Amino acid sequence: MTQDTFPSWPESAARLVDVAAGRSPADMIVTGGIWVNVHTRETLPDNDIAIVAGRIAFVGPDASHCRGDETEIIEARGRHMIPGLCDAHMHIESGMLTPAEFARAVIPHGTTSMFTDPHEIANVLGLEGVRMMHDEALMQPVNIFTQMPSCAPSAPGMETTGFEISADDVAEAMTWPGIIGLGEMMNFPGVSNGDPQMLAEIAATQRSGKTVGGHYASPDLGHAFAAYVAGGPADDHEGTCEADAIARMRQGMRSMIRLGSAWYDVESQITAITEKGLDPRNMILCTDDCHSGTLVNEGHMNRVVRHAIDCGCDPLVALQMATINTATHFGLEREIGSLTPGRRADMILSSDLAALPIEVVIARGRVVAQDGVCLANCPHYDWPDRARETVRMARDLKADDFAVPAPEGANGVTANVIGVVENQAPTKALQFELPVTEGRVQATGEVCQIALVERHRGTGGVVNAFVSGFGYEGRMAMASTVAHDSHHMIVVGTDAEQMALAANRLRAVGGGIVIFRDGQELALVELPIAGLMSDSPAADVAAATQQMMHAMRDCGCTINNAYMQHSLLALVVIPELRISDLGLVDVRTFQFTDVIVS
Amino acid sequence: MTQDTFPSWPESAARLVDVAAGRSPADMIVTGGIWVNVHTRETLPDNDIAIVAGRIAFVGPDASHCRGDETEIIEARGRHMIPGLCDAHMHIESGMLTPAEFARAVIPHGTTSMFTDPHEIANVLGLEGVRMMHDEALMQPVNIFTQMPSCAPSAPGMETTGFEISADDVAEAMTWPGIIGLGEMMNFPGVSNGDPQMLAEIAATQRSGKTVGGHYASPDLGHAFAAYVAGGPADDHEGTCEADAIARMRQGMRSMIRLGSAWYDVESQITAITEKGLDPRNMILCTDDCHSGTLVNEGHMNRVVRHAIDCGCDPLVALQMATINTATHFGLEREIGSLTPGRRADMILSSDLAALPIEVVIARGRVVAQDGVCLANCPHYDWPDRARETVRMARDLKADDFAVPAPEGANGVTANVIGVVENQAPTKALQFELPVTEGRVQATGEVCQIALVERHRGTGGVVNAFVSGFGYEGRMAMASTVAHDSHHMIVVGTDAEQMALAANRLRAVGGGIVIFRDGQELALVELPIAGLMSDSPAADVAAATQQMMHAMRDCGCTINNAYMQHSLLALVVIPELRISDLGLVDVRTFQFTDVIVS
Repeated sequence: MTQDTFPSWPESAARLVDVAAGRSPADMIVTGGIWVNVHTRETLPDNDIAIVAGRIAFVGPDASHCRGDETEIIEARGRHMIPGLCDAHMHIESGMLTPAEFARAVIPHGTTSMFTDPHEIANVLGLEGVRMMHDEALMQPVNIFTQMPSCAPSAPGMETTGFEISADDVAEAMTWPGIIGLGEMMNFPGVSNGDPQMLAEIAATQRSGKTVGGHYASPDLGHAFAAYVAGGPADDHEGTCEADAIARMRQGMRSMIRLGSAWYDVESQITAITEKGLDPRNMILCTDDCHSGTLVNEGHMNRVVRHAIDCGCDPLVALQMATINTATHFGLEREIGSLTPGRRADMILSSDLAALPIEVVIARGRVVAQDGVCLANCPHYDWPDRARETVRMARDLKADDFAVPAPEGANGVTANVIGVVENQAPTKALQFELPVTEGRVQATGEVCQIALVERHRGTGGVVNAFVSGFGYEGRMAMASTVAHDSHHMIVVGTDAEQMALAANRLRAVGGGIVIFRDGQELALVELPIAGLMSDSPAADVAAATQQMMHAMRDCGCTINNAYMQHSLLALVVIPELRISDLGLVDVRTFQFTDVIVS
Repeated sequence: MTQDTFPSWPESAARLVDVAAGRSPADMIVTGGIWVNVHTRETLPDNDIAIVAGRIAFVGPDASHCRGDETEIIEARGRHMIPGLCDAHMHIESGMLTPAEFARAVIPHGTTSMFTDPHEIANVLGLEGVRMMHDEALMQPVNIFTQMPSCAPSAPGMETTGFEISADDVAEAMTWPGIIGLGEMMNFPGVSNGDPQMLAEIAATQRSGKTVGGHYASPDLGHAFAAYVAGGPADDHEGTCEADAIARMRQGMRSMIRLGSAWYDVESQITAITEKGLDPRNMILCTDDCHSGTLVNEGHMNRVVRHAIDCGCDPLVALQMATINTATHFGLEREIGSLTPGRRADMILSSDLAALPIEVVIARGRVVAQDGVCLANCPHYDWPDRARETVRMARDLKADDFAVPAPEGANGVTANVIGVVENQAPTKALQFELPVTEGRVQATGEVCQIALVERHRGTGGVVNAFVSGFGYEGRMAMASTVAHDSHHMIVVGTDAEQMALAANRLRAVGGGIVIFRDGQELALVELPIAGLMSDSPAADVAAATQQMMHAMRDCGCTINNAYMQHSLLALVVIPELRISDLGLVDVRTFQFTDVIVS
């Protein structure tokens, strides 16, 4: 296991004291900046910050007593010195990038601390996969704290994951150097109902003095919510309206409000602070999920802070929500989150507190980015073959594998069809009349086929069903091994032949996303690690993803953000109708249902 | 060692969840109160709080779903439901009471959590004494968290304590169930100078994830202060002016502001919040030292909160400073400090938020006080004989032991005299011309004798010197085994015979404070435990102390708070002149000095 090699405050204390006292020279001094003090919520012009051993030794109007011949001087020239930004809850896999490449993408945006829950890889590779992510995280020049995934599978009994996470796994992970707490406890009905495994995972986390992440994705703020809070989760990022944020903070949780690539939950909740005037210390900004395209083109936590300011939040309060509030929440306020002695020297220089241009980024006392360019080395973990060979299909598939046989003698059937709704995570449970040809049900009109291809154990299992709403035309298919949360393979298409081509292509490349039309490959995003992530640079992944989205449009799909819809079709915890390796699932009742209405 | 027997949140989680969900009944419901929410800084009328297993299970407008046949109902009747108050830094020994009797005295004032540094007993009985205090603390119905003393002796080389505290002792104590952190790091020059033992104690505390208490008793906010901060202390309660508070908070420390029996540091520092408008989350209220008289007649943390409000602080902010701010500082914000699910059910009912009458006190889900009367059992530790037999003098003393021989043939001498200054902890280094009779220097006029009688090892050592400023007249003496910090015995008197009587009386009773005049005992405060504490009720100790102060006045002492002056005369870390078992100490230079100027 990779150890955290960055020396602790006590290990460096003697050097810090010596530098602060002026008895030995600092490694670096940042001179003449505006000290953005997130403890007192002040901006203090004309301050210096002296750094040694990657930590801040001294902050004050004059650090010349800390200066030696070899001290590196960074001239702030009146710019703001801002603590490096923290992303309080996120999934690195959402960027389709490894931790190293994710770090490389976000460092120029001023993100120096991330709290990441690798629950996608946990479904594919179990505890070992979590450890691989954890290990690569600890190799980075910025702080990536791992939240141990709590819920794999997300819907026990309704799907088969590659591996499962047990309460023992959680207890084991709590001893790892980079584990900061428990990842979002998504099984909120389980907690509210007193499910012993969920309570055991929470207990293992609390006993180790770490933070239990919450995920209460329901508008019900009644007794179910109260019971969830009593179970122990310390935060929640699933609120979508002001009342959600207020309820969480009043009940002693921290309200994490998110701006991801597809989540826009800041504007509707930050009014608890900006309009209702509640104490802002318990509100925290996060992203949850960001695609590579967002990281490459828009930013990361700087984008969230700017957005919070645009929503009327005081810039200093918004910065507190992305620095000290986060640090305090995770018990790290003496380690990160402010520019004060002893803390890791994680800092942004910016000439404007509201527009927040990220001009220089310092992490652990080194300049890691300048003017949007990452200057740091972000080492890659040596991902073993078993992490790269996760598309375990017994054989190549044929068109016949995607056939849906009709009841004998039927000329047509009524089928249960997953109805995709634009810009919404929930689907609709629809019914369509579909024709039968040669004993097989045909997808026609706005309905196309969907298949869930088992890919963890090579069972050869293919579950076929129907989906509507994508608008695909012609002979096409799209396949993806990103298939939340169990991450088998989802194939959607108008033609069984194209579906087989797409599935087999992903088998060959070890996972990713591919689109075929008329036998031609229109786009391919290779995600060789667990079928979820690339170890290529974010820009390359963003470009391939862009091409994939163009190909979807070329095939007739006009709905917004259709890739997200595709990848969530197996997420059997969100209503109404989903597909899993075990069948078609009516999530309204948590029951399996037939494709063909009898 | 006493274990903490109060079940943890994870141990009680299933019951909490069941009650919150309405599946099983609460032990107690407090109905119809104004919920003082210290997370959001709001008052929310018409709320109920349901309690089970000593913890809060549910808070909301209607807890009737948590009600069973045997649920105890407490009607708040529109009163404020306030989190139990926390004293963030204090010394129980200052009350001259054991932890049990201290708890019994402060519970009716609404104090339900204390962070106490037993550094007085550490000087007398070492680590074992700390453990005894820790053990009795854990037996109480309220939360007494122990801060491991860091500095015994407070001035190494200048005094001999009964025992010393080592870095190994600190590391050992960090494994005890009731230890919350390191007690005030008083050796601030040591930290600033990189003293390895001090840094090792801090490191042991930080490595165990606990809080390092600070004590920076200097107005110098320059490099020495910066170096102290870089060394790791997380808070400081020695600030006396607004600039002190601001400097501490800006540097990422928490500013603890105190109102003790003799400390008045709130009014001068709270303006950092009330006038300068800094974020109040890093300011915390505490008492540091309270005498029994204050506890009996004036209050405890309720007195501090009221005072903060009188100083112009918003009542909700003042309450945050005595509840959630404290809890967060010690990493306990999910355990105490707010009225929210999972936390210990520690609560005050009060009909007025500013006047703060303490009408009902609930701790761990039980009514522990009502209308000023403690209803809880506060069990006594079985203090062993070695804790009660700490006045170890080899023999009874005689008047001759207090003789100060003059240089041969001298008719008079110039003597260095400790000058007591009313209402100030520092003394003055004075010189007086004193006459010589029969070869002995005579105390005359405003000068009287002071002796430091060794009492830890029975060495028979008596160090004699002179003190002025008390105003004593006639033939009298006052002796005390409370003699900060090494707690030998300080005897002050106008007459050697009376001094011997007083010293021998304390030897006989095992410690305390006594005043003799003309061979008669005017007052006696028996402090049999370590010579520092009584296990009698606070009211009895307060009455005895009151009598002692009357006796001091009867003997001619007119200065305010003269007992405090008496007990601090051996505190060889506060300038200018002090006495220790090793001689007269000039604290300005940290050098021993002669009684008679050569």
